Amino acid sequence: MELLKERIRRDGCVKEGNVLKVDSFLNHQMDVALLDEIGKEFFRRFGGEGVNKLLTIEASGIGIAVMAARHFDNAPVVFAKKTKSKNLDGELYTTKVKSFTKGVEYDVQVAKRFLAPTDRVLILDDFLAKGQALLGLIDIVSQSGAQLVGCGIVIEKGFQDGGALLRSKGVRLESLAIVDKMDCNGIVFREA
Amino acid sequence: MELLKERIRRDGCVKEGNVLKVDSFLNHQMDVALLDEIGKEFFRRFGGEGVNKLLTIEASGIGIAVMAARHFDNAPVVFAKKTKSKNLDGELYTTKVKSFTKGVEYDVQVAKRFLAPTDRVLILDDFLAKGQALLGLIDIVSQSGAQLVGCGIVIEKGFQDGGALLRSKGVRLESLAIVDKMDCNGIVFREA
Repeated sequence: MELLKERIRRDGCVKEGNVLKVDSFLNHQMDVALLDEIGKEFFRRFGGEGVNKLLTIEASGIGIAVMAARHFDNAPVVFAKKTKSKNLDGELYTTKVKSFTKGVEYDVQVAKRFLAPTDRVLILDDFLAKGQALLGLIDIVSQSGAQLVGCGIVIEKGFQDGGALLRSKGVRLESLAIVDKMDCNGIVFREA
Repeated sequence: MELLKERIRRDGCVKEGNVLKVDSFLNHQMDVALLDEIGKEFFRRFGGEGVNKLLTIEASGIGIAVMAARHFDNAPVVFAKKTKSKNLDGELYTTKVKSFTKGVEYDVQVAKRFLAPTDRVLILDDFLAKGQALLGLIDIVSQSGAQLVGCGIVIEKGFQDGGALLRSKGVRLESLAIVDKMDCNGIVFREA
């Protein structure tokens, strides 16, 4: 997605530890016009698949999924939760996820009521690096018996192994920008 | 907001400990068509105030703020973060917030780059109970020197003291549904 790559080139910032900061438009401050274009692009790629539910994980995935949902005929968005809350009870799907950016392992949970075997689920998230969060969400979809249509990612770090791992499992993975290399000289995107 | 009240009556669920579960449409699964109507209503109330930035707090506020932003001429949405991350560095505004639902105190942070004295900020969130999260966000706006236009809340628990506290401080607070009483017999909303 050219518009996204241009934006990453212009406003993204490469930091030590393989961190690509895009917090001015994607995951701290959010440019909602860009999110809308991102949602439109996900629909272009997955629109023919009968998606009736979008699944993401708090927090940065939520804005992306909500704006995308408008293009998927206002399909409900479910966001998986990372921490226990009084508001989360009843029957839950649970899986363990290791966070690359935060260096901790945590439980990810979705209330069973919100995923059914009749659902056709598209998983959306902002970043893919080692793929742990996506594997967790895929595990939850699998526990529910729902059909996984695929995964839509805004930025994939192609130099880490999450993308290859997921594709080798047969998951339909669509990343709108794949960064193959990044350093102080700039960012190299994979050719589409 | 009648549509919202009807939805709370129909799909909300009162649980022990003053918990109002609205997770089927607001804060776990999200009905984006309803979020869009909520955004429209916030614009009806605050649209004349020159708002150029929406501020919320992860996670449940994000979907609400992103959908609302479309009505505020695609104003950027900034969401305050509750946990440390490698992605959050540079100069930060920090404040302490006590969570009513999770029973913990945590730091809330916003990168200084995303709030400036020239900003006219509308704070949005899903719930108001004791008002701790809102007070934290207001403190951050105040630290930044930006102008606080007001706070828009989807559901205020009118039987807790957050709303009264904020109004007594002169904050313009607009809650789309105020629950004055809730128990096994139903929910009583405050008259507009």
